[in-house]
Amino acid sequence: MTKSLQLKTAELEKISHLDYFNIALSVDLVIFGYENKELKVLLIKSDLEEFSGMYSLLGDLVRPDEDLDSAPYRVLLSRTGMDDVFLEQVHTFGSIARHPSGRVITTAYYALIDIRHHQLQVDTNELHWHAVNDIKKLAFDHKLILNTCLEQLRSQIMEKPVAFNLMQDKFSLRELQEVYEAILDIKLDRRNFRKKIAVKDWLQDLNEMESNLSHRPGKLYGLKKQFKRKSSKELAI
Amino acid sequence: MTKSLQLKTAELEKISHLDYFNIALSVDLVIFGYENKELKVLLIKSDLEEFSGMYSLLGDLVRPDEDLDSAPYRVLLSRTGMDDVFLEQVHTFGSIARHPSGRVITTAYYALIDIRHHQLQVDTNELHWHAVNDIKKLAFDHKLILNTCLEQLRSQIMEKPVAFNLMQDKFSLRELQEVYEAILDIKLDRRNFRKKIAVKDWLQDLNEMESNLSHRPGKLYGLKKQFKRKSSKELAI
Repeated sequence: MTKSLQLKTAELEKISHLDYFNIALSVDLVIFGYENKELKVLLIKSDLEEFSGMYSLLGDLVRPDEDLDSAPYRVLLSRTGMDDVFLEQVHTFGSIARHPSGRVITTAYYALIDIRHHQLQVDTNELHWHAVNDIKKLAFDHKLILNTCLEQLRSQIMEKPVAFNLMQDKFSLRELQEVYEAILDIKLDRRNFRKKIAVKDWLQDLNEMESNLSHRPGKLYGLKKQFKRKSSKELAI
Repeated sequence: MTKSLQLKTAELEKISHLDYFNIALSVDLVIFGYENKELKVLLIKSDLEEFSGMYSLLGDLVRPDEDLDSAPYRVLLSRTGMDDVFLEQVHTFGSIARHPSGRVITTAYYALIDIRHHQLQVDTNELHWHAVNDIKKLAFDHKLILNTCLEQLRSQIMEKPVAFNLMQDKFSLRELQEVYEAILDIKLDRRNFRKKIAVKDWLQDLNEMESNLSHRPGKLYGLKKQFKRKSSKELAI
């Protein structure tokens, strides 16, 4: 026979679990950029003695009066001056001992930006772009977080038109292939790549050609308007 | 000129942010099942007075000595007796006022199970399967969490062989189409569906036919061995 359900108030529930309310929440941002045919990520020098000399992702604690999903936009704006970047929540990391300050859970977001269109506010933290392939070790579990976001990016670029956020508005198919190769860290077959991209119907022929190049100029393309995701503000709604 | 970086200890960092360490973390499980051509989800009666009479997802607070990713398996085992279910982390919900006990952040996981192979431990909580289409309102922000996991499931079923976790080991293409229709909540074109599934190369022809049916028997198929994801324990590694 089913016993009847005992109700309790939310307040009583909290009092009986006070030692559970001892966690801080942070956000960490994996901000990808693309430059000189390399996929890069934005890192700062850690300001914790425990990680002296090591680099970490951009991040901060979520404030008591702040929604989780607002925090990454605040961090991005305050540390880089950027407010027009698309951020996607990827994964939450919650191992018991991941942070030396105590129990700090972190939610990771990734962003893709066109490096040439953004001016970093370097300040004291040595905020710089690092080639993803050169990163061996990071503070905290940030290497795991970076790898998880990189996997997410790799799994999405053939499904959704996200890679274009790394590029300028006009590009040749050769340049597009180079971006895909940098993300996937493999060489792609030219003909096969062009066939796969054509099927997606993401691109618009701009009726222009590349100029001032040492190689044979290619046609220029842009992402079709309906696929453009410009501003974090539009997307946060 | 760049100022030099001031280091601080993790302990000092915590002391200067004590009011940030006031959060509890929970997990919520969206456990999908399939029965009578309907997509279902496992719900319990809420035991909080604030949500008296309302249903909620299965969930619990993460314990102080427990990794985030271990908690959903503990909840699943203790509430349903199941330990062989695939769980995937989907999204973390962190609005300031989402829980009446205080600041409780929740990480949502989804699971797909074959209803016929699992025996629920109903106990006091009125743990039951509910048709997803019949659910209008849930306690907390659980309707939003359900919708987010449903979107994730829908976006994954043509990319990965996940829907098969809802089904018995042997099935006809007609039964498979019914599962996809239940998840997507639309009617699919028979010929088109079969073509799309064939391209995936997920299925193995079992050289058997359906029997004891009122309609014309169809061929039976199984998921190829390399795509089977049986146990949460294997997958948690």
